[in-house]
Order: sequence, then structure tokens, then C-alpha cells
Amino acid sequence: MTYQAPVDDIMHVLKSAVGLDDLIERNFYDDLDADTIRAIMEEAGRFGSEVLSPLNSEGDHKPSALNGGKVTTPPGWNEAYQQFTAAGWSALPGPQQYGGQGLPEIVSMAVSEIWNAANLSFGLCPLLTQGAIGALEAGGSDVLKETYLPKLVSGEWTGTMNLTEPQAGSDLAGIKTRAVPQDDGTYRIFGTKIFITYGEHELSGNIIHLVLARLPDAPPGTRGISLFLVPKFIVNDDGSLGERNDVICTGLEHKLGIHGSPTCIMTFGEQDGAIGYLVGDENRGLNCMFIMMNAARLAVGVQGVAVAERATQQAIAYAEERRQGRSPQNRDEMVPIIQHADIRRMLLAMKAMTQASRAICLVTAREFDLSNRAATPEEREQAAARAALLTPVAKAFSTDIGCEVASLGVQVHGGMGFIEETGAAQYYRDARILPIYEGTNGIQAIDLVTRKLPLGEGRVMKAYLAELKQIVEAVSASNQPEFGAMAKRLEEAVTALTEASIWMGEQLGQDPQKALAGATTYLRLFGITAGGCYLAKGALAAARDGTQSSPHVAIARFFAEQIATTAPGLALTVTAGCDAVLGLEPTALSA
Amino acid sequence: MTYQAPVDDIMHVLKSAVGLDDLIERNFYDDLDADTIRAIMEEAGRFGSEVLSPLNSEGDHKPSALNGGKVTTPPGWNEAYQQFTAAGWSALPGPQQYGGQGLPEIVSMAVSEIWNAANLSFGLCPLLTQGAIGALEAGGSDVLKETYLPKLVSGEWTGTMNLTEPQAGSDLAGIKTRAVPQDDGTYRIFGTKIFITYGEHELSGNIIHLVLARLPDAPPGTRGISLFLVPKFIVNDDGSLGERNDVICTGLEHKLGIHGSPTCIMTFGEQDGAIGYLVGDENRGLNCMFIMMNAARLAVGVQGVAVAERATQQAIAYAEERRQGRSPQNRDEMVPIIQHADIRRMLLAMKAMTQASRAICLVTAREFDLSNRAATPEEREQAAARAALLTPVAKAFSTDIGCEVASLGVQVHGGMGFIEETGAAQYYRDARILPIYEGTNGIQAIDLVTRKLPLGEGRVMKAYLAELKQIVEAVSASNQPEFGAMAKRLEEAVTALTEASIWMGEQLGQDPQKALAGATTYLRLFGITAGGCYLAKGALAAARDGTQSSPHVAIARFFAEQIATTAPGLALTVTAGCDAVLGLEPTALSA
Repeated sequence: MTYQAPVDDIMHVLKSAVGLDDLIERNFYDDLDADTIRAIMEEAGRFGSEVLSPLNSEGDHKPSALNGGKVTTPPGWNEAYQQFTAAGWSALPGPQQYGGQGLPEIVSMAVSEIWNAANLSFGLCPLLTQGAIGALEAGGSDVLKETYLPKLVSGEWTGTMNLTEPQAGSDLAGIKTRAVPQDDGTYRIFGTKIFITYGEHELSGNIIHLVLARLPDAPPGTRGISLFLVPKFIVNDDGSLGERNDVICTGLEHKLGIHGSPTCIMTFGEQDGAIGYLVGDENRGLNCMFIMMNAARLAVGVQGVAVAERATQQAIAYAEERRQGRSPQNRDEMVPIIQHADIRRMLLAMKAMTQASRAICLVTAREFDLSNRAATPEEREQAAARAALLTPVAKAFSTDIGCEVASLGVQVHGGMGFIEETGAAQYYRDARILPIYEGTNGIQAIDLVTRKLPLGEGRVMKAYLAELKQIVEAVSASNQPEFGAMAKRLEEAVTALTEASIWMGEQLGQDPQKALAGATTYLRLFGITAGGCYLAKGALAAARDGTQSSPHVAIARFFAEQIATTAPGLALTVTAGCDAVLGLEPTALSA
Repeated sequence: MTYQAPVDDIMHVLKSAVGLDDLIERNFYDDLDADTIRAIMEEAGRFGSEVLSPLNSEGDHKPSALNGGKVTTPPGWNEAYQQFTAAGWSALPGPQQYGGQGLPEIVSMAVSEIWNAANLSFGLCPLLTQGAIGALEAGGSDVLKETYLPKLVSGEWTGTMNLTEPQAGSDLAGIKTRAVPQDDGTYRIFGTKIFITYGEHELSGNIIHLVLARLPDAPPGTRGISLFLVPKFIVNDDGSLGERNDVICTGLEHKLGIHGSPTCIMTFGEQDGAIGYLVGDENRGLNCMFIMMNAARLAVGVQGVAVAERATQQAIAYAEERRQGRSPQNRDEMVPIIQHADIRRMLLAMKAMTQASRAICLVTAREFDLSNRAATPEEREQAAARAALLTPVAKAFSTDIGCEVASLGVQVHGGMGFIEETGAAQYYRDARILPIYEGTNGIQAIDLVTRKLPLGEGRVMKAYLAELKQIVEAVSASNQPEFGAMAKRLEEAVTALTEASIWMGEQLGQDPQKALAGATTYLRLFGITAGGCYLAKGALAAARDGTQSSPHVAIARFFAEQIATTAPGLALTVTAGCDAVLGLEPTALSA
């Protein structure tokens, strides 16, 4: 099935939940206007549909392969990557200082959704490069930046993030990779990293690895981790490529999904040690990494939106074609299954959840933009805090949604959904990595509850809740019959989120384990409430434009009346259910 | 990981929710006693662990393959099947009249859980044979029964169910396969069937296909479908095997999961027509099929329980081994992740959902038993109605749970969960067929709401609700502090289910589309309420035995306080959310 970039839907979110017109008016986005943004997305949509989407199933059937240390990407991958960089897509989000177009996060994330919907395995390559650029921008010396950033920004080189080791996944304190200082100021890196996305391939002239490692005298734990830049090929002073560095791919993982994307085991220093350059200060590597990781987490949330959108498009197309059963209107012949109530429910759920998570991600992107572009330090700081608050929700909620929507997509297809050739199963398999990588969704929930809720002594969350309440009040005041019980359901959801947030604040001081027991459920409640409110904002905008009967109203209403209805129960689970989680001794579980 | 049959857990459900002691006392089960049942399960557990479980991942990696019309099953499959029949496991559920052991459904289903947990792809073969036996028992002539049942019961021959055609899946009215009557009283069958599980293989000497087809003068729609028995090899009058019949496997599907199980495209009548024998009356084929399908639907529900149990065992074992992060009790070294609150929450959810769905399935099995074994026709009829009511819930709820638990299992493993060698991903893939086959879960929900709720003019459901209420009252009266808010949460759930049931009853008369819009959500609400009540009954039994601090109490409490909390929201979604499903014209969805 051909993927069509949902440009209208994305523009709708940008114009309603994100408030694009206002942002443009306040001059945050230089000379960028809404028409230009739409034109960029349409162009990206064409590239996604015509070049990346046809390779998606190819990448699934003919995975990346390792032969004699070299990784071959799926057929067509290399040509597509060259076209991608030649067309300037790599450089779109990059800093202007280094040749990028410096487009804002809201545009960068919207376009990223298109790449990842067209081809999730392909989209990971620029996503990871973007992460490396972010870390280098945050912590690299001027020399490192000037040497590496222009070619990473252009896409001539690609980047990787080397964090995980067999014994150090969610807990980076366990990192054992060693960095030995040399007399010339460089370091030699020794160790093995696993789960390295695009760790080795032939798409680009060089691969720039950002690697977490320990200096010999480093303190134990996370305060003794430094960040190093380790190029696949040493870069000479004149910028030309020199010797092959002592870093090789020693294995590829055999995975449930994203087969096109090579997931590498990388071995550093099998000979004399891989030459590396310190990024940022010694023992402060996680600081740069976390700056980068927040951006990457949002980008992974957008991958969740992307796979959900793709699965939804395919399910709708199938439901329009496939005929089974009769309808009350047509008893004589089989009707397209889209006419059956339960199929409509599933398709609406897919649409509503996809659009809710898209709105959360793009609002988060706006906050990242404001944290860089707002006029005053106060505004920038406020936006940075809001972005920090929303990032774990954008990541975890959207990626859970990605899996749920992909699963509904399989279900809509019936028996055909289980057949690999149909394609629905690939989204189901591909999506399953999203709640795991870039910090599992459990880690996101812990981050939300223990680090983000306490920001500004709770004021950041409080201000956010007030904003959601305002949306609900506006919906309530609008008094549109077509909105159904939207205002009521969302009011209940905001009340539920407020109560659960207050409870969380209390537990954090008294009994943090109780807060942790409810963290994942709380994050879900947060996502549902926020998503419902943003869709309602979109419905209000549609109503203002005189398009009450637009699908935006129907989808917002569906979300409120069919999905946000779970909110009070989730709040009760959080606030009254923690003893049920903590009551049983872990040892009793295996009994 | 080695699978261990959860014999204690199964016995606990049989003794509490199912009421085994009472059934034995009332002489329903002849001379079968609880110790014998436990011994059977332990023996089955050994066979499952030692013979079937080691082949599970083998079957995934080396799928069944088609070569020159012959289907080769995975390595070890054939030996395992011979051992399986030699040990008498095939004959366990079969009718005594034809050489079976005639064990009751509760034992048959408990043992079936073990086969399917050990190896879902293998377990399908006896499951389908069992279905064929059921259809033949229900509708076959004495000659057919005597010719085919003994060898199907012993497992010497296997059986298949041939329903689906490319244009006829959920809607069997579309069946086009033709049956042409012959002068000798046989029929010649022409047509193509798809998704035929174990349609062709070399495990057994013969394969007995039960095939839905149309006679030349048949009325259109479902009232013109007849059922035929079509053997792979014609059976001579002396019982020996004669000529190869004109039915061949012309393709195998490439599937998301259950790779070991061959899913065949079967072509009937490429030459002179496949010789078939009518089962039951002409044009009444669906009647036999539905008798069989109810049993098969319960068996598929049990497959959901099975894969959930297997995934849970593996996740717990991993969480006990894998060390990451610190705990409040241990800040010095990494602790097993089972100590983290969010991991405990996931593992408890897996256990609680698995056990709740097991209880629903085994209670349904009891009703099937009573429908055959109870003393009076009234009791038998009542039990049959209860079995009919619970079957769609057992099938759909348990298979949804199978998928959800398998997905949690992947999540508990973190990055390792996405790596195929770990095994967690296989359960996730295998489980995904369960909500689809044997009637999609959407079809189950429609069946529940439109055919089962109206049984006895609503009295069947009313009586069931009264029974659930009694359980809640007993929990409430027991007043155990360790039960937490179990009684309160379950009371809310039963109230929610009652309200939603009344609403459903009203809609069915007035506006059935509204009932259909809420059917899936209603079924979920039903499953959660019933499951929560059965676990509570188990907790009561444990408390009576003086084992209040048993995991059974903790798991029942977890279910009530963490899962049943969703019930009121689900009821609200059903009763107030239908307009949100039906409001948008289907054509607007693709806009």
C-alpha cells in the first residue's frame, strides 16, 4: 500500500494545538510561514511515498547483513540515502552555522514523522545522526565541531550513539568500556557496545560514533562516565579520510522487527585501541548525552506516531476494499467492512490515538523551539521545563500508541493481517521496539514522576494542568451540540490527572516506592488527558472555521467519549492501587 | 527457558472458581478424583516440558515447508507426535465409545493449556482434530462415526476444519465450494479453502477434512451450506487406506507467528472432484459446525491462557536473573530487576491476567461438562446456556490477554525482548493469531451481545450477574484486611457490568447498531468483572485454608485494584460513547 503523508492532519495540529500562527506572528520562526511549512511537508511526503515507502517491505524481507566486517544494507537503501542527502533532507534540521537549514523542531519532527512512516528502518539512520549532532553541539570543542558537524549535518557522514553494554542497559552506571588517555591528548577506547543502530554500513563515507566510556581514575557509577567521539575513519587535518580506526562490527542482531536497520555489536580496541576524542568534560559524559537524549526521545515518540499513521492508512484502505457481512442499509450483498460498527470503532480508535499522540509530540517540539528561540531567558527557561515535563510522555505514550494502533491494524485485516505479505504484521513487529529503546517506557514513567513532576517545586506541572483546564473550559463554553460529552469527559480526565498528580507529589516526599508503583499508569493518564485536550483544541479550531462536521470534531469526540473515559479509573489505580503492587514479595512471584 | 506446567495454579482454580470438590461429590465425574486430575496434569506437564517445549523455538526457526505437494513439519515434530499418540494423550478427551478416555472438559482444557503453552504450533494439531471429532460426533452417520472416529480419537489420523475461502471469512454466506451429488450417495467436492491449519502433513496416516460446501440447488447464504467429510486417503470398507483423494495442498502461508503449524491452501477437485461424505443434513452444515466451533472457541481461549502463562514464566525467570539499577534496600550493587516497582507491576499484571482468563476458561469448561453430565434436562439446558454465554468471553478476553501478556513479557526483557533468540518475541508473534482465528474477537463480541445476552430473554445473563454479586458479597463479608479494597472494586465492576448489560438489552430492541458499537468494550468489561470475581473466589478459598498471605490473595487483590478499576470507565464508554462511534460517516475516515 502507498503511504500518503497526512499533510492536512499535521497542519491542523500545528495550527490548533501548537498555535503556529501565533508563533509565526511573534517572529519565533524567522521568515518561515505556514505555506512554506506545508510546501516542505508536501515535498517530504513525495519523497517518502516515492522513494522510501517502496523500500519498507524490501528492508523487512532482505535485512541488513554482516559479511567480513562489512554491513550491507537492503537493496535500494544506498541509492535512497544518496538521494536523501542530495535533496538536502539530511541538512533540514541541522544548525545553520554548519550548513544546515536550521528549521525549527516542529518542522523537523513533522518531517521526521514522514520519513519514519514511510520506512521506520531507514528513518533511524538520520534520527541517530541527529542525536550525534545534538551531543556534539552540546559538548564538543570548536575543533571537533568544525571537523565533524558540517559533514554530519549534510549527511555525508552518519552518527551513532554507543551507550549500551551487555551489563549496562537501563542502568548506565554499569558501563565498563575503558578510555585510556594518550600523550597527544587523544584517548584509546577498549570495550564492547551492543544494540548500536547503524553502527556499521556503507551508506556514508564515515561513521562518527559517540561512545560512553570510563577513564582509568574515574569514580564509580554514573559520575565517572565520559563521552568520546570515535570516527570509523580517522579524519586528517585537511579533512580527508585517513586510516581505519580500531572499531569494528562483530555481530548483527536478529530482531523481531526493523530488519532493515542494522543493530550492531561494536567492538572497540581489538588491536591498539580505537582513537577517540573527549566530548565535554571528563566524567561528565552523561550531561551531553542527556541533552541529546531528550531530543532523541521526542524523535522516538514521533516514530510511534509514524508507525501508527502508516498502520491506520493501510487498515482504512483494506476496510474500504474488503467485503464481508451485510449492513442494516444493505441486506442484499456483502458490504465493505468499514461499514460495520466494530470496524469503525477500531479505525476511529486508530485515527484518534494517532492524532492525539502526534499533537503531544508536536506541542513538545514547540516547547523545544521556544526554549531556544523565545525572547527572554525566563520564557526560554519556562519552555525548557515544559519540554522536559512533556518529553517522557511524548516518548512513552506515543510509542505505546504505536504498538496498540499497529495491533488494531492487524485485527482490522482479520486473517490477512497475520500473513506477512499483507504488511500489517510488519508494522506490528517494527513498532514493538519503540517502547523499549531510547529509555524503556518504564524508565520514562520514572523520569516523569521522580524528576519532571518536582520541577520548579511542582509549579511546572501545575501550570500545565491549568492550561489543560483552560482548554476544557473553552470547549465547555463553546457549547457545540456536535461535541457531545467532550467537555464533560475531558473535565473528568483533567480532574483525574490533577488528583493523581497531587497524590504523586505527596508520595515522593513520603514513600517514593508508591509513586514508582503508579508511575506507568500515571503516564498513561497524563497522555490520555493531554491528548484528549489537544484534539478538543483542534475541534474548537475546526468549529471556528465553520467546519463543525469535520472529521476533526468527530475524532476529538471519539477520543473523549471512548478513550478519555478510562481516565478516572487510571487515577484510582494510581492513588489506591499501589499497595497491591508492592504487597507481594518479589520472591513469591515465582512460587 | 524450560516451561513448567502450573499444576498448583490450575488445581487452585479447579478447586475454587470451578468448584471441583462439589462436582466430584455430586458424581458428575464418575470415579475421577482430584488426586487423579493432579496426577494427569503432572504427567502432561512432564511431556510438555520434556518433549514439546524444546521443539517450540525449533518450529519457529524451521517452519513447516511445502515440497511437491508434501508438507514437511519442523524437525522433531513427527517423533513428538508419535510419542504423543503412543502415550495416549490424543485419546484423552475423546468419547469412550470410540476408544477415548472420555475425560471431562475441565481436564481436557487444563491439559490442552499445557500442550499449547509448551508449543502452540504443535498444540494446534490435536486441537483441530478435536474439532473434527466434535463435528462428526454431532452430525455424522453411524457409519461415518464408526469408520473415522476411532482413528481420529486415537490420533492415528488427524482432522481439519475447512471453512474459510478468499471471499468468505467472517461471513460464511460467501462460500462457493461446490458439492456435486453422485449416484452412489457420495459427493464430489470442488473449490479452494484457505487458512487450513494442518491441512497437509505427514504426521498421521490419514487426514480427515471437514469441509463446508454448497449443493447445486442450495439456497443462497448461510442456509445453503452443507458439511462434508473428505479424507486425504479414501478408506476402504475393511478400514484400510485406499486411493489418494483429489484434495491437495497448493500453498503454505508465510505468517507472523505459529511458524511450526502449516497453514494450508487446500484445493479440492483439481481432477474429478474430491470424494466427500455428507455430515448431518443437507444445507444444515453450519449447525454441526457451530456445535464444534463453540468447543473450539473455548480451546482457542485456552491457547490465550497458555501463551500468557508461558510468557509470564519466562519474564519472571529473566527478571530474577537480570540485574540493573539499585533498590531502596540495596544501594551498593545492581539488584535483580524483579525488585523494581514497575517490573513487579508488570509481572503481577501478567500473572493476574493469565489466572483470570484461565479461571474464565475453566468455568466455561465446567458448564460444557454440566451440559452433558448434569442429572436433569433442566440443569443440562441451564448449563448449556451458561456455556453459550461464556464462550465468546472465554475466547476473546483470553486471547486479548494472551497478546497483552506476551507484549508485557517482551517489555520486561527490555532490549533483549526484541532479539529473536530470547524467545519472548516468539510468544508475541504467536499470540497475535489468537484474537483472529476461530471467529475474530469482534465477531465474538457481536455473538455475545446479539445472540447470548438475549438467551432466555435475558435471564441467563441475569442469573450470571447474580452469581458474580454473590461472590462479591462473600468477599465483602469475609472482611480480610489483606484483601484491601478487593470487595469495593469488584462491587463497582459488577455494578458497571450490570448497568452496561441493561443498556445493551434496551439497545437490542431499539437500535442494534448502538449495541454493536459497544460490543467489544462490553466484552472486555464482562471479562474483567468475571475474571476479578473468580480470582476473588480463589482468594477466599486460600483465606479459608489459612493461607491469607498466599500469592492467590495478592494476585486477586492486584487484579481488583489495578485492573478491575477500569470497569466503570468501560461501562461509561459502552453506554454513553456509541454516538461517537457511529457519528462519523465511514467515507469521512479516509478523508
